[in-house]
Amino acid sequence: MTINDLLTDIRSFLDTVVFPLEKELGQSSFRELVPRLAKVREEVKRRGMWAPHLPRELGGLAMPLTEFAHVSALLGESPIGHYLFNCQAPDIGNCELLHGHGSTEQKNTWLVPLAAGEIRSCFAMTEPEFAGSNPVNMATSAKRDGNDYVINGHKWFASSADGASFAIVMAVTNPEAAPHKRASQIIVPMNTPGVTLVRNISTMGHEGSDWMSHAELRFTNVRVPIANRLGEEGAGFALAQERLGPGRIHHCMRWIGICERAFRLMCERAVARELSPGEPLAKQQGIQFWVAESRAEIDAARLLVLDTAQQIETLGAHQARDRISLIKFHVAGVLGRVLDRAIQVHGALGLTDETPLAAWYAHERGARIYDGPDEVHKSSVAKRILKSYSAKRTAP
Amino acid sequence: MTINDLLTDIRSFLDTVVFPLEKELGQSSFRELVPRLAKVREEVKRRGMWAPHLPRELGGLAMPLTEFAHVSALLGESPIGHYLFNCQAPDIGNCELLHGHGSTEQKNTWLVPLAAGEIRSCFAMTEPEFAGSNPVNMATSAKRDGNDYVINGHKWFASSADGASFAIVMAVTNPEAAPHKRASQIIVPMNTPGVTLVRNISTMGHEGSDWMSHAELRFTNVRVPIANRLGEEGAGFALAQERLGPGRIHHCMRWIGICERAFRLMCERAVARELSPGEPLAKQQGIQFWVAESRAEIDAARLLVLDTAQQIETLGAHQARDRISLIKFHVAGVLGRVLDRAIQVHGALGLTDETPLAAWYAHERGARIYDGPDEVHKSSVAKRILKSYSAKRTAP
Amino acid sequence: MTINDLLTDIRSFLDTVVFPLEKELGQSSFRELVPRLAKVREEVKRRGMWAPHLPRELGGLAMPLTEFAHVSALLGESPIGHYLFNCQAPDIGNCELLHGHGSTEQKNTWLVPLAAGEIRSCFAMTEPEFAGSNPVNMATSAKRDGNDYVINGHKWFASSADGASFAIVMAVTNPEAAPHKRASQIIVPMNTPGVTLVRNISTMGHEGSDWMSHAELRFTNVRVPIANRLGEEGAGFALAQERLGPGRIHHCMRWIGICERAFRLMCERAVARELSPGEPLAKQQGIQFWVAESRAEIDAARLLVLDTAQQIETLGAHQARDRISLIKFHVAGVLGRVLDRAIQVHGALGLTDETPLAAWYAHERGARIYDGPDEVHKSSVAKRILKSYSAKRTAP
Amino acid sequence: MTINDLLTDIRSFLDTVVFPLEKELGQSSFRELVPRLAKVREEVKRRGMWAPHLPRELGGLAMPLTEFAHVSALLGESPIGHYLFNCQAPDIGNCELLHGHGSTEQKNTWLVPLAAGEIRSCFAMTEPEFAGSNPVNMATSAKRDGNDYVINGHKWFASSADGASFAIVMAVTNPEAAPHKRASQIIVPMNTPGVTLVRNISTMGHEGSDWMSHAELRFTNVRVPIANRLGEEGAGFALAQERLGPGRIHHCMRWIGICERAFRLMCERAVARELSPGEPLAKQQGIQFWVAESRAEIDAARLLVLDTAQQIETLGAHQARDRISLIKFHVAGVLGRVLDRAIQVHGALGLTDETPLAAWYAHERGARIYDGPDEVHKSSVAKRILKSYSAKRTAP
Repeated sequence: MTINDLLTDIRSFLDTVVFPLEKELGQSSFRELVPRLAKVREEVKRRGMWAPHLPRELGGLAMPLTEFAHVSALLGESPIGHYLFNCQAPDIGNCELLHGHGSTEQKNTWLVPLAAGEIRSCFAMTEPEFAGSNPVNMATSAKRDGNDYVINGHKWFASSADGASFAIVMAVTNPEAAPHKRASQIIVPMNTPGVTLVRNISTMGHEGSDWMSHAELRFTNVRVPIANRLGEEGAGFALAQERLGPGRIHHCMRWIGICERAFRLMCERAVARELSPGEPLAKQQGIQFWVAESRAEIDAARLLVLDTAQQIETLGAHQARDRISLIKFHVAGVLGRVLDRAIQVHGALGLTDETPLAAWYAHERGARIYDGPDEVHKSSVAKRILKSYSAKRTAP
Repeated sequence: MTINDLLTDIRSFLDTVVFPLEKELGQSSFRELVPRLAKVREEVKRRGMWAPHLPRELGGLAMPLTEFAHVSALLGESPIGHYLFNCQAPDIGNCELLHGHGSTEQKNTWLVPLAAGEIRSCFAMTEPEFAGSNPVNMATSAKRDGNDYVINGHKWFASSADGASFAIVMAVTNPEAAPHKRASQIIVPMNTPGVTLVRNISTMGHEGSDWMSHAELRFTNVRVPIANRLGEEGAGFALAQERLGPGRIHHCMRWIGICERAFRLMCERAVARELSPGEPLAKQQGIQFWVAESRAEIDAARLLVLDTAQQIETLGAHQARDRISLIKFHVAGVLGRVLDRAIQVHGALGLTDETPLAAWYAHERGARIYDGPDEVHKSSVAKRILKSYSAKRTAP
Repeated sequence: MTINDLLTDIRSFLDTVVFPLEKELGQSSFRELVPRLAKVREEVKRRGMWAPHLPRELGGLAMPLTEFAHVSALLGESPIGHYLFNCQAPDIGNCELLHGHGSTEQKNTWLVPLAAGEIRSCFAMTEPEFAGSNPVNMATSAKRDGNDYVINGHKWFASSADGASFAIVMAVTNPEAAPHKRASQIIVPMNTPGVTLVRNISTMGHEGSDWMSHAELRFTNVRVPIANRLGEEGAGFALAQERLGPGRIHHCMRWIGICERAFRLMCERAVARELSPGEPLAKQQGIQFWVAESRAEIDAARLLVLDTAQQIETLGAHQARDRISLIKFHVAGVLGRVLDRAIQVHGALGLTDETPLAAWYAHERGARIYDGPDEVHKSSVAKRILKSYSAKRTAP
Repeated sequence: MTINDLLTDIRSFLDTVVFPLEKELGQSSFRELVPRLAKVREEVKRRGMWAPHLPRELGGLAMPLTEFAHVSALLGESPIGHYLFNCQAPDIGNCELLHGHGSTEQKNTWLVPLAAGEIRSCFAMTEPEFAGSNPVNMATSAKRDGNDYVINGHKWFASSADGASFAIVMAVTNPEAAPHKRASQIIVPMNTPGVTLVRNISTMGHEGSDWMSHAELRFTNVRVPIANRLGEEGAGFALAQERLGPGRIHHCMRWIGICERAFRLMCERAVARELSPGEPLAKQQGIQFWVAESRAEIDAARLLVLDTAQQIETLGAHQARDRISLIKFHVAGVLGRVLDRAIQVHGALGLTDETPLAAWYAHERGARIYDGPDEVHKSSVAKRILKSYSAKRTAP
């Protein structure tokens, strides 16, 4: 199946199966919906569209990042798009970690069922006591004791922990090492004694449930085998960084997808809603401006992300790191503006849950915060750029 | 009690009684909280701070608009501030209508218990089938039949209808009249046969309940006495306009209050949260910019609203109508920016319901939509201004 | 020579020859500088870099639009870059018109010396009495009289008319035709009796001179042979539209070039200027934000323009017309923001004429106005987009 | 004469005398215009409107800051308004300095003729080698030698130095003192040997002349009596700070005046310019938005500045220092946006010098830079605000 064929199939599947499902999402908790969604996931498998980013041996379509980016934009048009195709965060990132750095046993135990969509996972890194924007600040520790690590710590915003089978936990294993070499990533089954899901954190008025939730977790003398560590001891940050490159493409293309849906809803509303008979909103110049500005911003943002995916594939994530930072805040900004305009065009309807706009408006406010607030990315990329000018200056 | 004494008392009451209550608000539905809040309302009465905007004979403090504006800004610092002092929308507007235009019987039946906080009310104007920004577009009709009106129609975003004792309903009584003279305002007890609360509309993921809700209502052959009409037949729009002037001051000062609270939370977070030991967020220049810009914008917006209240008192709402439009969108814009910055400074915490910021961010998105979208106000005020230039041009 | 080799050569030529010339530009009028620049143009020819967009038979490098776009961005880094390489507006557009639609005689007489840089030309379309954004509104007429047209009219913002050998004049030849078929484009030698250059219009404090000027022109009973008409009678608008597609790419890529230069100057200043010893501006977070935001916006804008050039080449200007409108206002917006930030980083120096920033700030304010104000482009592209949604709506 | 009478008189004088003069300003250098303007200044005196801010004994109207603010806004409507009424910067600030801190002899020698408009002055503080935003960084020195100071240094952006009779020069007299106590302000007659006006700095393409210019100055062994020092030795910064408070009000109200004129021109153009017959620009919703937004922003900004003037008068400049910083960047921002919109509404005409908009657009870009860039004001006011929150935090 070519990428274009796949995109056509997904487009049709969205229109006929996924979008109609969204209403139910608004009326029940995600947990209640899980059995229903499981059947749709089976249908996705049957149609040969499952997990396009995964290698064939794991049931996927082995699609390169530059092609999968297009898929991601399409799936982003529905809040449950990625989930249905098993390429949702945080599982997609955990799959990439396990595939790249897992031992054979880790792969068999965790990656295979994760790729098959039989289990879910979470990633526990951020701690409430420390600014997430400085990941070196971390109190969770994993101390060796015989063949085990004993983990103690406090995490939050562990997305989708509710119902997950395992967490990948970032913990300090080497407190004496250089700041960026202190932590390791350790697989912790969620049913290990000492792991407590304190609560699903209420955000924007919702605790959510199951995959659609963000947990606060406590780890109290949690004991797991040293063999559960991913990669080298002290490699936690390096792995986290590596996870970020393609992860940023996934996020950004998903945001592009949200923008495209919001854009379409905005246009549809503008032509359908009349201020007075024969006077649709579409005739209002202010709305025309928003349509034009949104189209330009979305197109430019999409090209920027695709070009960055290309850079990652050809130059590697390290060489592409400036761009990986740039797209984070740039696309998050476009997302915020497009959603805001789409809601305004809908008027009171835009505030209701009869379109996905309101939920996105509330929950994607986080886009400018998660994975490091925009401001951190702006500063860090600018420092690197400015450093290159300093270097020129002081060159002979 | 002078206005300054009252403001001091309210500030202290907010700090010691109201803010601590907010957490419970997040954990239970508003309906569950009503008995609890009723006790606090009693305490407000006991302390002589009840309903400062109402005349003394109705139990209030007879405060003029220019003074009450300051009270409103203070109460706005909590989502339940106005409710606790019985000056919450839509009851405050309905009180003003009844006080200004109600018959003695209407006042005794509805205004007295409303002023005492014994009952609540709602206002049913917007219809889902018509753009709210053009209030002339309206299908709800009230046809005379003997001594009664028979009302049929469909309304939504009737805030606080859930639990209200009566609605003031805007309905077309004179379909042949000029567009702005077709509708009347009619008091409809909510328990009248034919009145159906279809649902509390889910907005930003919440249906809400009781005072904190927005209802969809159906009126099917609802029969009420003609004596339930407020003011003249056909005067519905004129009354609605009149209601808007002071109502705009109430809303805008409440938004200023939200801004002040958000500003304070932003500053408190900035000095408390450290990026690394000894490096609070407050040292980040980007955050300093937001603090300074917010302070300037809030101060300027407050002065603009206060000056407009002054204009309403001295010139009347009609003469002040340009300003009444200007503050609507100007202050809503400041509100949006200040909330956005405050959330960003809080990082992930800003997305949680541990501060009121997230709820405000979600639910005050409506500030740019309700009472007519910003765009309508901008156009209409600009047209009046530009017309005055046209007039000069064509003068001899 | 490959495009990359050419770009390397141009970069080096800019650094060593062109940038050092800019200071003199500030100190003398353009007219005084012409002889000096003529020598540099000879050098450009000698180095084989002349007019890369022109076909080889006209002395150019026959570069396709998608490649020339990169050249244009590079030349845009200096206010005199395009002039030195003979690809400056309005001559580049006139060359395209003559090449595509000129008769053999027109080509021999006008195109050959224009391509060689021996003469200059201008384009006279906008009229002071009519909004430029509605090109159908036009009073200049060309009436047939024997074998001649007799032209009467009033034009302004005819850029570079001062010193031009001929103008291409838009004039109504068919007043009874449909609005878009009324005008024709006619070649008028500037020394024809009845052609008056009323003045070089002072803009932002400058009248300018020669190529760097915008003229007001009067045409009073100007008689030219009918053979001077370009293309069919009544084809004036169609030709003007055709001229716009590639012309937009040229403008936008030139703006990208200005952005790149401004970005570099901003970074260089930020690392060089110290607030106190050891505290360069580059350490200020606010400046870091501007650097990061500018980098993201320039990169995204560049990709958008290049993709549009690709669309023009593969689909044609008509199919690409939405994008051609989108890039106009999108890139003009980026240009404005980047220049503004660069000036702010320079402080008082940014206001002086010691960098090209101030001149660009003043004179490229026009970027949001010339070729149709941004607002017209936004409206027209949005109307086309919204129309496609209307069509879907009313489809069976 | 009451303030309202004066404002009426000035409005009429502007309409009949000043605005018609502006065109000539565009066509000649300021120097050429000086004799002509001198006559208008005489007329201002005759009409009893001269220098309203000055005490009566100096020929003024003894108007308090809160009243003069309104005058300043009115005069700001013309680029030459303040000059004609002798309340132009930098003379107005120098008058305040001399009046508050000058010795009797200094007053007789410099203040009396300055107040009478017989001479002009300048203020030499900023140095090209040091960031103006950090006034402690300064190399100009004044060393005692007998009864004289010997001054050496390099200044720029000494506005109006061309043609001035004296400069007030900021120079380090006490290099060993604490940073803010090192400099003194010294009166230096411009014809003192060793004072060189290197050039009028070309900004935005203009060198300007006379009062409308910004000079680069060199001081080489310039010898003036110690009696020329203003105030105490080392009090230079304190005096500069003091000068800033009312100076900020003057600047900000002048900017408000520019905004009002730009607003009026925008509205006049919008109703006069037709896109097609019967379709004035005023019908475009985009332009309506700009009109409404501008009106709200200007009104709010004006109230903020007036309230700040009130604070200065009642609390003193020190207590009001936060607000003095806030209005600087807030009003400069409004100014920039309003001018930008007014130009856009004028289209190509807005770029020409047929309205004052283009000159203001170019030269008031400096508003965000002079008197300390906006960013410095934002940071410093935010630091003070945030400090107060820190203090609360650490209080017992």
